[in-house]
Amino acid sequence: MAAIITLTTDYGSRDPFSASIKGVILKINPQAQTVDISHEIAPQDIWEAAYVLKCAYNHFPKGTVHLAVVDPGVGSGRRPIIVVTESYYFVGPDNGIFTLIYQDAERLRVHHITSTHYFLPNPGPTFHGRDIFAPVAGWLAKGIPSGNFGEEITDFTKLNVPAPKVVQNTIDGHVVHIDRFGNIITNIMYKDVQPLIAEGSDLGSASVTITGKEVKGLKKFYAEAAPGVPSAIINGSGALEIFMFKQNARTALSVKRGEAVRLTIARKAL
Amino acid sequence: MAAIITLTTDYGSRDPFSASIKGVILKINPQAQTVDISHEIAPQDIWEAAYVLKCAYNHFPKGTVHLAVVDPGVGSGRRPIIVVTESYYFVGPDNGIFTLIYQDAERLRVHHITSTHYFLPNPGPTFHGRDIFAPVAGWLAKGIPSGNFGEEITDFTKLNVPAPKVVQNTIDGHVVHIDRFGNIITNIMYKDVQPLIAEGSDLGSASVTITGKEVKGLKKFYAEAAPGVPSAIINGSGALEIFMFKQNARTALSVKRGEAVRLTIARKAL
Amino acid sequence: MAAIITLTTDYGSRDPFSASIKGVILKINPQAQTVDISHEIAPQDIWEAAYVLKCAYNHFPKGTVHLAVVDPGVGSGRRPIIVVTESYYFVGPDNGIFTLIYQDAERLRVHHITSTHYFLPNPGPTFHGRDIFAPVAGWLAKGIPSGNFGEEITDFTKLNVPAPKVVQNTIDGHVVHIDRFGNIITNIMYKDVQPLIAEGSDLGSASVTITGKEVKGLKKFYAEAAPGVPSAIINGSGALEIFMFKQNARTALSVKRGEAVRLTIARKAL
Repeated sequence: MAAIITLTTDYGSRDPFSASIKGVILKINPQAQTVDISHEIAPQDIWEAAYVLKCAYNHFPKGTVHLAVVDPGVGSGRRPIIVVTESYYFVGPDNGIFTLIYQDAERLRVHHITSTHYFLPNPGPTFHGRDIFAPVAGWLAKGIPSGNFGEEITDFTKLNVPAPKVVQNTIDGHVVHIDRFGNIITNIMYKDVQPLIAEGSDLGSASVTITGKEVKGLKKFYAEAAPGVPSAIINGSGALEIFMFKQNARTALSVKRGEAVRLTIARKAL
Repeated sequence: MAAIITLTTDYGSRDPFSASIKGVILKINPQAQTVDISHEIAPQDIWEAAYVLKCAYNHFPKGTVHLAVVDPGVGSGRRPIIVVTESYYFVGPDNGIFTLIYQDAERLRVHHITSTHYFLPNPGPTFHGRDIFAPVAGWLAKGIPSGNFGEEITDFTKLNVPAPKVVQNTIDGHVVHIDRFGNIITNIMYKDVQPLIAEGSDLGSASVTITGKEVKGLKKFYAEAAPGVPSAIINGSGALEIFMFKQNARTALSVKRGEAVRLTIARKAL
Repeated sequence: MAAIITLTTDYGSRDPFSASIKGVILKINPQAQTVDISHEIAPQDIWEAAYVLKCAYNHFPKGTVHLAVVDPGVGSGRRPIIVVTESYYFVGPDNGIFTLIYQDAERLRVHHITSTHYFLPNPGPTFHGRDIFAPVAGWLAKGIPSGNFGEEITDFTKLNVPAPKVVQNTIDGHVVHIDRFGNIITNIMYKDVQPLIAEGSDLGSASVTITGKEVKGLKKFYAEAAPGVPSAIINGSGALEIFMFKQNARTALSVKRGEAVRLTIARKAL
């Protein structure tokens, strides 16, 4: 069974960057199968990489190596790391790109990569994806134990990820991602909200406020919504999402990532 | 020999969608090899997916599973289906996305996918590509017989695909696709036109009319055309195509898909 | 061990072109593993393909077949060729796309592909990537000797690639590529400049002039540069590069490919 290595970067698809990484991996480990998660992360957008990786990583087989490189600090003192969880390996810079992995993991070990003999010879200062992270991922997927790459550390970097706030019968969250369709995805998760909802009530009677607009009730599927009307749904990842059927809600509502979102529900009596 | 699964979607390449599908497939079937046909289909554009899939599918080895998901009706009552032809399998929503496959196939069987134990647990309402179609494709490529997924149906959905009309010495068709180069591809096929052409004549004396402009004669290759002049050719798929050498004919002629195209030939006497 | 075939084209990712190529390859050679270098080369931009291929090709395992098709002359008299170097095979049109491979290679053999029985039946005039180059790459990766495809030629086409000029203490080069981040890459290579530098001096005291702006000194890594200030670095390929930390230098400086760049150094006494 071939080792799988996924790639999440801001390298785009026009330049030779992502292919150079794949070449380096295949030279070390011809059995490896590389799978692109995305190379279209916005340049230097560590959060976007963290979010996209979080949505995809756990659909892969146990043992998959996830390489993620959005790396404005390349060549500086920021550390290269390997993250080991109960099911996966992650390789990339210690700049917070694995924050959401740390949140998900039940068991967690983080190694500072210092064994330079696994690097390409003479790594340059601008392309550690090719010179450091790709060869480390290749060797890791070939079975080299994570401990061989360097010492364990505990002071790894985490992005600040504000959780939604519950006040009375409202939950205040924000927009974490906007997808290709213009669907607006929030950090309000159904599994967190569900226990708060009054018995006999449900999200059909909830309302969502975003950029001063109120969206009444939640739809069960996209096509249920009237055309041209902003609507809300619990999406396939369990997150509250604002959408417009067959239209682009981002454009229609002029929303950016970070925008405040309020969910108002019929709450359980305390 | 590894099973091949191709992917045709409107998921784009920035979001975690296409990678999630690949992860689900690889978890079920680590031997599967996924090949992207396109993830850049315009959002919700079922015709574009149907057209792009039709151009590519029959270049793949016999037994390939073609997964195609452009699915505005996701989560509603529209049916998930498997299409079986003499050489291939197709998996996707029953919304007409396989219309051109139905036209091509000599033998054809369509199954309504109802065996939910092949799905991911608790499929959500917004991402059947991941929750239903990917696992079904993974199991199908692993050798589960198509009949195991559900009953055969005959009332599957077809898009309305108008054929060109022959009137006197003219053939009236329309633009079916415009490619990255701005080449304008029509539904007028050489194999359909050729039997109509008068003996001793050929398409060199034909003319093409589009948006009120007349294009005289057909070129044998792109570089034969004068720069800046709209020209016509029978392309590598046997379709009449309007192009401008090293320029973008779409931009120059302001053409959209659906635009009327007339081919005028020297016709055989009746 | 599976044969690897890389792909460098201007086919984009929305149309069925690149997938058709992969299908043709897999039908001939189901063991082949295709790896995209790029399909986002600007339409008809032979230089860009040559440059991107050059940056990526030598990271792949020995024996890799590199297929490159940017081919405005498709269907005309331009020849299809196979290039054989000490470590790799290259397949594509004889239009200069392999110029930088010819420069790199220590040993070199070029074959004019004339054995039409390796082509798809009835190749069309517009898509030799699918009809000629893909099947040839598939058979080549399957072990057919390069000599079987046609006679050796020596009059293959090369693009004109001007080298930097050294005058007194200045090196005059130009911009060869601008990447996704807006980093401006020049043809001035550190390995060529380094022997000229006065003892006791280094590039820290050098200056770079582009579009009338002067950039003082070279940075050791991106994050060392002050925000909003154009800066210079020797990048991971050993080339002089102008960048702006976390910003787009292309936009800020309004630079295009071909733009003149001057490096001024403290030179060794002659």
